Amino acid sequence: NSLVGRIRLLLDNSQVWIVLLLAGLAAGLLAAAIDVATDWLADLKFGFCSTVDGGAFHLSKSSCCLGYEDHAQCQGWYPWAKAFGIYSGGGKWFLEYFFYVFLALSFAVSAAILVKEYAIHAKHSGIPEIKTVLGGFVIRRFLGIQTLVTKSLGLVLAVASGMWLGKEGPLVHVACCCANVFIKLFPSINNNEARKREILSAAAAAGISVAFGSPIGGVLFSLEQLSYYFPDKTMWQSFVCAMTAAVTLQALDPFRSGKLVLYQVKYSSGWHGFELVPFVLLGILGGVYGGLFIKANMRVAEWKKSTRWLPGPVTQVAIVAALTALINYPNHYMRAQTSELVSNLFTECAKIVDDQFGLCKTGAASFGTITLLIFAAVLGFFFAAVTFGLQIPAGIILPSMAIGALTGRALGILMELFQRAAPNFPLFLHQCEPDVPCITPGTYAIIGAAAFLTGVTRMTVSIVVITFELTGALTYVLPIMISVMIAKWVGDAFSRRGIYESWIHFN
Amino acid sequence: NSLVGRIRLLLDNSQVWIVLLLAGLAAGLLAAAIDVATDWLADLKFGFCSTVDGGAFHLSKSSCCLGYEDHAQCQGWYPWAKAFGIYSGGGKWFLEYFFYVFLALSFAVSAAILVKEYAIHAKHSGIPEIKTVLGGFVIRRFLGIQTLVTKSLGLVLAVASGMWLGKEGPLVHVACCCANVFIKLFPSINNNEARKREILSAAAAAGISVAFGSPIGGVLFSLEQLSYYFPDKTMWQSFVCAMTAAVTLQALDPFRSGKLVLYQVKYSSGWHGFELVPFVLLGILGGVYGGLFIKANMRVAEWKKSTRWLPGPVTQVAIVAALTALINYPNHYMRAQTSELVSNLFTECAKIVDDQFGLCKTGAASFGTITLLIFAAVLGFFFAAVTFGLQIPAGIILPSMAIGALTGRALGILMELFQRAAPNFPLFLHQCEPDVPCITPGTYAIIGAAAFLTGVTRMTVSIVVITFELTGALTYVLPIMISVMIAKWVGDAFSRRGIYESWIHFN
Repeated sequence: NSLVGRIRLLLDNSQVWIVLLLAGLAAGLLAAAIDVATDWLADLKFGFCSTVDGGAFHLSKSSCCLGYEDHAQCQGWYPWAKAFGIYSGGGKWFLEYFFYVFLALSFAVSAAILVKEYAIHAKHSGIPEIKTVLGGFVIRRFLGIQTLVTKSLGLVLAVASGMWLGKEGPLVHVACCCANVFIKLFPSINNNEARKREILSAAAAAGISVAFGSPIGGVLFSLEQLSYYFPDKTMWQSFVCAMTAAVTLQALDPFRSGKLVLYQVKYSSGWHGFELVPFVLLGILGGVYGGLFIKANMRVAEWKKSTRWLPGPVTQVAIVAALTALINYPNHYMRAQTSELVSNLFTECAKIVDDQFGLCKTGAASFGTITLLIFAAVLGFFFAAVTFGLQIPAGIILPSMAIGALTGRALGILMELFQRAAPNFPLFLHQCEPDVPCITPGTYAIIGAAAFLTGVTRMTVSIVVITFELTGALTYVLPIMISVMIAKWVGDAFSRRGIYESWIHFN
Repeated sequence: NSLVGRIRLLLDNSQVWIVLLLAGLAAGLLAAAIDVATDWLADLKFGFCSTVDGGAFHLSKSSCCLGYEDHAQCQGWYPWAKAFGIYSGGGKWFLEYFFYVFLALSFAVSAAILVKEYAIHAKHSGIPEIKTVLGGFVIRRFLGIQTLVTKSLGLVLAVASGMWLGKEGPLVHVACCCANVFIKLFPSINNNEARKREILSAAAAAGISVAFGSPIGGVLFSLEQLSYYFPDKTMWQSFVCAMTAAVTLQALDPFRSGKLVLYQVKYSSGWHGFELVPFVLLGILGGVYGGLFIKANMRVAEWKKSTRWLPGPVTQVAIVAALTALINYPNHYMRAQTSELVSNLFTECAKIVDDQFGLCKTGAASFGTITLLIFAAVLGFFFAAVTFGLQIPAGIILPSMAIGALTGRALGILMELFQRAAPNFPLFLHQCEPDVPCITPGTYAIIGAAAFLTGVTRMTVSIVVITFELTGALTYVLPIMISVMIAKWVGDAFSRRGIYESWIHFN
């Protein structure tokens, strides 16, 4: 009897591990598929890959033009105007503008229809609901296979539409759905609520792991943000699940660059003592942004709830998507995908080959850049406040990071201008070497991103760890920690609740 | 009243942060000082730095010969034989042997006397006691300033003596002592047991952070191994403390290489599917080693407790130190410091400039290397089992890693020989490219180290994270995870208790 009991225990335990490994694998696979599909659809707004140069229609611009240093020389990629044989300046611009808006609108509306028709739970980021589920509530169909498929497809369409939303939060939901699908295969787990919740928090860790290429950040996110109870065993399970997902994603290498996420960076320079002043300022700005954003977003949600004459959810999505696309296209920074924008904002000027965003202009031209950056950040704030809450899969993590990165980069360029104009100012005097660039605006962008994300979500450890894993070096950990801590304090002074708690409270 | 209350709360809270930052700073500073002092004393066993080449007596060999590619050409470094003007083969060897043994013995005895005379709590690693303290017990003087000073000095002497012990565990104790010293400055914290414990677990994280250059590993170690209760707030505090310590250590750069620990590595090659077989084997070996080691170590401790005629603790240390030195010197691998040995075992052959350990020999000579490695591992096992428990500051983490690395490297070289001898063996056929080294024995060493450490301590997450931070890449995370998991299972089959729990139980 004891032997039978032991074997049964072993089988029981191994079931949990099978589910965890399968969930990790599935999360990695789906994340890679979503990356590739989003990339392709997003590029489709600008043109398509022809078979001319050995390409194929299903390729994204970067896959189509693989091997070209300068994408402008790539023959296989057909911008829409070229496909229609229009080469005149004005006509070209308008035709491409039209295609951009039309396709962005179609993607967004398709996503909204998918959600409305097939799985209403696929809307939003899903993180507040996961918190509720892990707290012990049951939301029917929230983690079903239909939600999984709808959310994955809808996420691709929503992200490709170029609206101000992120895939990071929804990926957590997707990973939890995967785990839940596998849980259903094993009745002994399915009937044990405690065990189920353990696996779901492990799956959430896998979601963040693939969203940021940061497996440890995922475990800490699950620990900090989602779980009410987190024993040692759960930590090891989360860790195995998160690592499996990250390794799967790396093996698939969706960006063909060895990077797990588009905006991983390495900085070649350090920071100087006086820079703590702007870094603290970014922390304060992040806290203020978080407080204001939560207020604005909840105000929009309350207004929508109390207003009777509003059109249906799909029409709402269509209106916001059309407005976003119309305003995005003429603005250099906002035309690109948010992840690409963030990636460019994080990068050092010394490492940029083709400065498509004009971020590395020097001298008087920098003022134009600063104005455009601030303008994009303010617009982004309003778009994100309206978009987060629509009935499509939409996360708030990436938009917050983007707004923070825009603000941070603007501040960084301002500091650079200041330092160049007055190198003998007492603050800089003994810290900057002459004839060498002293300030790296890219680092201000990443610190801004971390601070603004903290302001909105009120997480601390996981954000520092995620940023640490994105940059891969200890160099910038201290300023990141300081800004994150200040953003948290300032944010908490506005309201105790982060964005996810606010939504839980709202529902 | 409310305003006064608020300000008091703010001041109260800021006290905790001041203590955490000071403790982090002090841990980083002390770790750097211990590194530098150990380096110098350890080298003193072989010779000294003369003023000839612009050096000074207080410099270690690597600082003395900074700038020389080949240390043999360094004029400033005087081996003892050279200082005495003895150049004949035999005389030289014996004189240097004598100095090695004499100095090793003096260091060890000094450490033992320090501990006996000034602070008995400075003995051992201190981790079992810290677990007890965090569990709510009070051990008088265990965290006092006298213990701090004695443990730091004793640790330098003990490590420099070349015995089979590590500084990692004791550093955790040192960091906790630092925190406790600062706690005493603030009565409102000193009188609050809960708050005190929170700060102590944060300080423990800082200890591991500086021991392995792994701040996140430190937080998870504190979470996994030490704490009974670990709320969000504690995590953030631990994180800040651990990061402060790591950043301080990096700023001081004790090894002058930018590395936080001697044995950080980067691998340029990946692993192949068939290698999972030896990796699983290493996991099993790690578990068996852990089980046997704990049994052996506890047997020694019990025997010492029950035997009346044993000499005093200082004499015991003297006997073990003399034996260790006498046996270490003639053995190539064991003559060097354990951390240096581990560093060499981890490194790829392609990156070794001067193969002082003969680890990269090829062909028939490899069998000699394998024999020596296994011999060193077996000897290390016995020495470590006797040394861990003596009345000097001594940790078990590094010796376990070294024994694992020796075993792993031996297995790696064996696999390499096998693959070279039979490249057409079905296992290798489609996985190894021809004419390119297929197997990297260094990676076997690091996986062996992780598995053996797991066997002894039964930690999982923190060991994987520490190893991940040591290698800095996702590449080897999967095999490390697998071996760690298997080592944990096999170890648990021997006994449920890890080494630290066994010692708590023993006392």
